[in-house]
Amino acid sequence: MGQTLQIERANHLKEKPDVSTVKFGTVFTDYMFTNRYTPEYGWSEPSIIPYQNLVLSPSCQAIHYGQSVFEGLKAYKSGEDVLLFRPDENFKRMNQSLSRLSMPEINEENALEALYELLKVERDWVPDGPGQSLYVRPFVFADEPFLGVRPSETYQFNIILSPVASYYGGQADPTSIYVEDDFVRSVRGGVGSAKVSGNYAASLLAQKKANELGYEQVLWLDGVDQKYVEEVGSMNIFFVRDGELVTPKLNGSILPGITRKSIIELAKYKGYTVREEKIHIDDLANDLHSGRITEVFGAGTAVVISPVGKLNIHGVDHIVNENQVGPISQELYDNLTDIQYGRAEDPFGWVVRI
Amino acid sequence: MGQTLQIERANHLKEKPDVSTVKFGTVFTDYMFTNRYTPEYGWSEPSIIPYQNLVLSPSCQAIHYGQSVFEGLKAYKSGEDVLLFRPDENFKRMNQSLSRLSMPEINEENALEALYELLKVERDWVPDGPGQSLYVRPFVFADEPFLGVRPSETYQFNIILSPVASYYGGQADPTSIYVEDDFVRSVRGGVGSAKVSGNYAASLLAQKKANELGYEQVLWLDGVDQKYVEEVGSMNIFFVRDGELVTPKLNGSILPGITRKSIIELAKYKGYTVREEKIHIDDLANDLHSGRITEVFGAGTAVVISPVGKLNIHGVDHIVNENQVGPISQELYDNLTDIQYGRAEDPFGWVVRI
Ligand SMILES: Cc1ncc(COP(=O)(O)O)c(C=O)c1O
Ligand SMILES: Cc1ncc(COP(=O)(O)O)c(C=O)c1O
Repeated sequence: MGQTLQIERANHLKEKPDVSTVKFGTVFTDYMFTNRYTPEYGWSEPSIIPYQNLVLSPSCQAIHYGQSVFEGLKAYKSGEDVLLFRPDENFKRMNQSLSRLSMPEINEENALEALYELLKVERDWVPDGPGQSLYVRPFVFADEPFLGVRPSETYQFNIILSPVASYYGGQADPTSIYVEDDFVRSVRGGVGSAKVSGNYAASLLAQKKANELGYEQVLWLDGVDQKYVEEVGSMNIFFVRDGELVTPKLNGSILPGITRKSIIELAKYKGYTVREEKIHIDDLANDLHSGRITEVFGAGTAVVISPVGKLNIHGVDHIVNENQVGPISQELYDNLTDIQYGRAEDPFGWVVRI
Repeated sequence: MGQTLQIERANHLKEKPDVSTVKFGTVFTDYMFTNRYTPEYGWSEPSIIPYQNLVLSPSCQAIHYGQSVFEGLKAYKSGEDVLLFRPDENFKRMNQSLSRLSMPEINEENALEALYELLKVERDWVPDGPGQSLYVRPFVFADEPFLGVRPSETYQFNIILSPVASYYGGQADPTSIYVEDDFVRSVRGGVGSAKVSGNYAASLLAQKKANELGYEQVLWLDGVDQKYVEEVGSMNIFFVRDGELVTPKLNGSILPGITRKSIIELAKYKGYTVREEKIHIDDLANDLHSGRITEVFGAGTAVVISPVGKLNIHGVDHIVNENQVGPISQELYDNLTDIQYGRAEDPFGWVVRI
């Protein structure tokens, strides 16, 4: 079984859309990467093939028992170059997710190489408008046709690409958040710190409730006490308190975001004090009320930094910074996106140029 | 869009295997039921079609975000008839699972009718050897090609069938169980009481650990205190204590098993006292040690009743009933399977004859 990357050319290429009008996650490029795992050969036959449907047995393990993990990162255009932001971190986290679901780990080096090759082939799909990027979605799922509850013997590792506009289609208005104290996303000992498909389906009902109550996103509390702040939908959360940055400490049920990690490193580099703490929801309410907390923002690949203008805690709305983007949120957003788009120096060696 | 069941005939039928040598969940029949959901037409175009692969987009929602639920029940041969055991309960529970994952509910009546029709077409696939049955797997998953985290707009509801031998291939030896106090399956406010794909992937690592330690199955504790008994792999759990039946009370994180419910009803009917309680793991250890608890068994569709001969609690092995099948376990197993196979009267109206 081959281990060298094969490329199968498409007969015809799609017309590229006007990315500024494309809806997130609906348009995909001409090619995808694919790689199969079997017990005999391990991960083998890596190939770049025309974007195509998956043909799966109706008893496919991922559909019945959920062995499925994914990653999300972005490729940015910088002149003629394509830039990736810390892609090694994504494959590292993917391996942590895989091992949590008893799935075989991938070779991170090979995965990076495959992604670079795929992006070379799809270079023209990386959009260059303001805030635009090519969203990269690596995913691994179990495809053995078998209904017993045990790890699958076979898997697929694919990477698909989707051109995306700025997440909010322009300047971000601060978002509104509902603190959920009934539904629980995850608990220590569970799979909350892994990027596994089941976590997202499980979150939808709370998301719907928040929307019906008039809020855009859910802030999750911990699963044991339902009192400690964890994270938001697809973002980690940060607070500016007494001029310092504070974010919940990773505890096994929070997803360890790469944006979170980068913001912590960037803020420290810029001289901010950063604290990773267990944050009690009542303390948060008090600190919002007293004005100690002056800014709140979410942090994740899709949005980079998303300012929060309103938080509902136990039925009480707290308005943050008069529902305006705060100066530290703006500063970190500008610094981080400048590095991602190659507009600023990258003192951390985060950016990979292709 | 049609609402009447269509049947598309297969050109050629598979050779039927010797069921006694078939591995659980590996062989499927000639036909499957399928039904699609779209926002415009709701559930429509129900059809029985030749068993065939699913053709799914690489951005299929179920694979990335896990909107996928399933059910499991069995069809038994009784003379020329095919019997089903409480199939209405399975579709009722499927609707509860669907609603927990923000998926559209099915029409339970239509689903039952479709299953009956499918079983009429596949009548010859229902095996009649001792302990054999046709395993029925209804499942619903999201198939919209879209990478945003929100409920899918489109779904498939399929039913596939797999002939199975007696789960243990003969007389059940009591099983051994490891009480897991590190990993957590589910917590109140989560999705543990729904039969959703993600719960099973999340359980595999603990299962592997138990196997490596020499135990066949995992007994889960609650997610909040990690002290109260919940359930086993794919079974609920029962104890015979002072001659009474005791089982954990449903609490929102335990799957409400149909076998569990049936055993409770059957045991009461036979004059046993049945208690649904919050069971502390230390009380369980004490009662096993003192001999108050004389039998332990798991209860689920696959095994019906599975006697437990050994339980490891906090590192200590407790042997139950000298690792022999106990009299009450045996009695309930015989009574229940006699009803399921149509060998005994069914005072509860549980069995549907096709
Ligand atoms: C649940 C959850 N939390 C946080 C994040 C943020 O992680 P990252 O910064 O790596 O995108 C994500 C991913 O997008 C997520 O899905
Ligand atoms: C987690 C879990 N618990 C318990 C059961 C038992 O439920 P039932 O008796 O309906 O098969 C199952 C299903 O098989 C299950 O998956």
